Amino acid sequence: MTIVLALPAGTEISKNISKELSLEHHIITHKLFPDGESYLRLPRNIKGQTVLLVQTTFPNQDKRLMELILAADACKEYGANEVIALIPYMAYSRQDKAFLEGEVVSIRAVLKSLRSAGIETLITVDIHKEESLRYFDGKAINVEPWQVFANVLGSDVKEDALVIAPDKGAEKRAATLAREIGVNYVVFSKYRDRITGEIRHEYKDIKLEGKHVIIVDDIISTGGTVADIAKFVSERGAKKVYAVASHGLFVRNAVRRLRESRVDEVYVLNTVPQKENVKVLDVSPAVVNVLKELI
Amino acid sequence: MTIVLALPAGTEISKNISKELSLEHHIITHKLFPDGESYLRLPRNIKGQTVLLVQTTFPNQDKRLMELILAADACKEYGANEVIALIPYMAYSRQDKAFLEGEVVSIRAVLKSLRSAGIETLITVDIHKEESLRYFDGKAINVEPWQVFANVLGSDVKEDALVIAPDKGAEKRAATLAREIGVNYVVFSKYRDRITGEIRHEYKDIKLEGKHVIIVDDIISTGGTVADIAKFVSERGAKKVYAVASHGLFVRNAVRRLRESRVDEVYVLNTVPQKENVKVLDVSPAVVNVLKELI
Repeated sequence: MTIVLALPAGTEISKNISKELSLEHHIITHKLFPDGESYLRLPRNIKGQTVLLVQTTFPNQDKRLMELILAADACKEYGANEVIALIPYMAYSRQDKAFLEGEVVSIRAVLKSLRSAGIETLITVDIHKEESLRYFDGKAINVEPWQVFANVLGSDVKEDALVIAPDKGAEKRAATLAREIGVNYVVFSKYRDRITGEIRHEYKDIKLEGKHVIIVDDIISTGGTVADIAKFVSERGAKKVYAVASHGLFVRNAVRRLRESRVDEVYVLNTVPQKENVKVLDVSPAVVNVLKELI
Repeated sequence: MTIVLALPAGTEISKNISKELSLEHHIITHKLFPDGESYLRLPRNIKGQTVLLVQTTFPNQDKRLMELILAADACKEYGANEVIALIPYMAYSRQDKAFLEGEVVSIRAVLKSLRSAGIETLITVDIHKEESLRYFDGKAINVEPWQVFANVLGSDVKEDALVIAPDKGAEKRAATLAREIGVNYVVFSKYRDRITGEIRHEYKDIKLEGKHVIIVDDIISTGGTVADIAKFVSERGAKKVYAVASHGLFVRNAVRRLRESRVDEVYVLNTVPQKENVKVLDVSPAVVNVLKELI
């Protein structure tokens, strides 16, 4: 039997999934000590069971990761047969490569830690680079959310809409979303100066007049990349601009920045808790499809 | 050769130690991304070297621990021969036992994670329970700081001073400190209601009039335990009350609470950064003694 155990930042999605799959659902008892330490207590005996831990890792990435480590270790110590972790947003996934000598490949250390803590199977949604999952020495599944977006966008946009990938890294996302909706896509280029960190875009010379444009990426953090492209396409006559991203972190007034750059609609998933006034789509159906094969 | 690498919360002690032992000292390059992720970069080639990572784990326990994990993993990946971690204050060390079924033994998970990340030798100062170090599957050393306190207190207190351990768990601390100063000690009892968490003390019927009393513990967090005892001994005529603890976390106006409970002097170590107006003693000499044997 599989028991779903929600950690402090995993309650919403875990409820949806448990309901859909008729799984027993519990919230792990948690509190903060006055000094800031997390206290966790497993809410039931899990000996011999398969445990599905659910926790996302934004905001407070480090606390959320540490809680996953504490809970996974406890599940194994209390005799869980298998520990699966559903981590809808995987923190540190953009730190997947050392550009400069000595840089820490943080996602490697994070995935190794989760595995060492006792997580045998990892499910995440639209991780920054799928190849990073090789650092997890167990079964790792990357859930593709594009059908979820296409279901909503497909009826919304016109036939000659255009999907834009801000850079090569987002090409697969743009291609999949475009195919699901039945429109074309194009890839822009993004250069990051390796010393200053400054970002420059290379825009394609494309016809945009009167078009619906969908800019797609995995993560919107400060919103700078999407805002730059939105401004570019608006100035060239795009009729409506959509920003679509799996994970809407929205730091430093990102949503206001998007609006001011003439983004009309922002679509994200519920992989992180959302306070901003954007359209939030439930990723649970896509996760359920994966879980059905697994448990 | 041993190279000292200071993480963001380890710069002060690491400098003292490097100077004393004439070791090469570097600060690990670090920044925070806008979304809160830590970025780390090793400041020099450490291939084939022994690396001594220095980082304490309060405040922001989870971030500090995660930085240790990231840095240790990177040291091994970049070819360090051995990774030693000096963690002056070890977070989660009070969560060393499951009182209730299902409770997470957090210190076990934390120590296992640090080991998995590549730390082969762990040095910490006055960990809550020394037995917890068995969870670290490598060499682990607990530095005793009592000589550091005795050097200062010895000339300060009167011959008939009395050292008080608030509970059985602090008895070894009290006994050692009392022996170093050359005075007597006594152990009080503390009961924690396992459901409500409420704490009750059992005080000894001892002669306190005109005495210097030193209350000793490993950690002062909210200061409740020490404040209760200070009040008790003051009301029974103690002339001067010292609160002595290795790690002064001082959450929720703890120091004010101590002063109001008639604690005259508060002595702590520099194992955590200190903003409060208390006397801070440098633990580096005690750590250096241990390191001399090790490297």
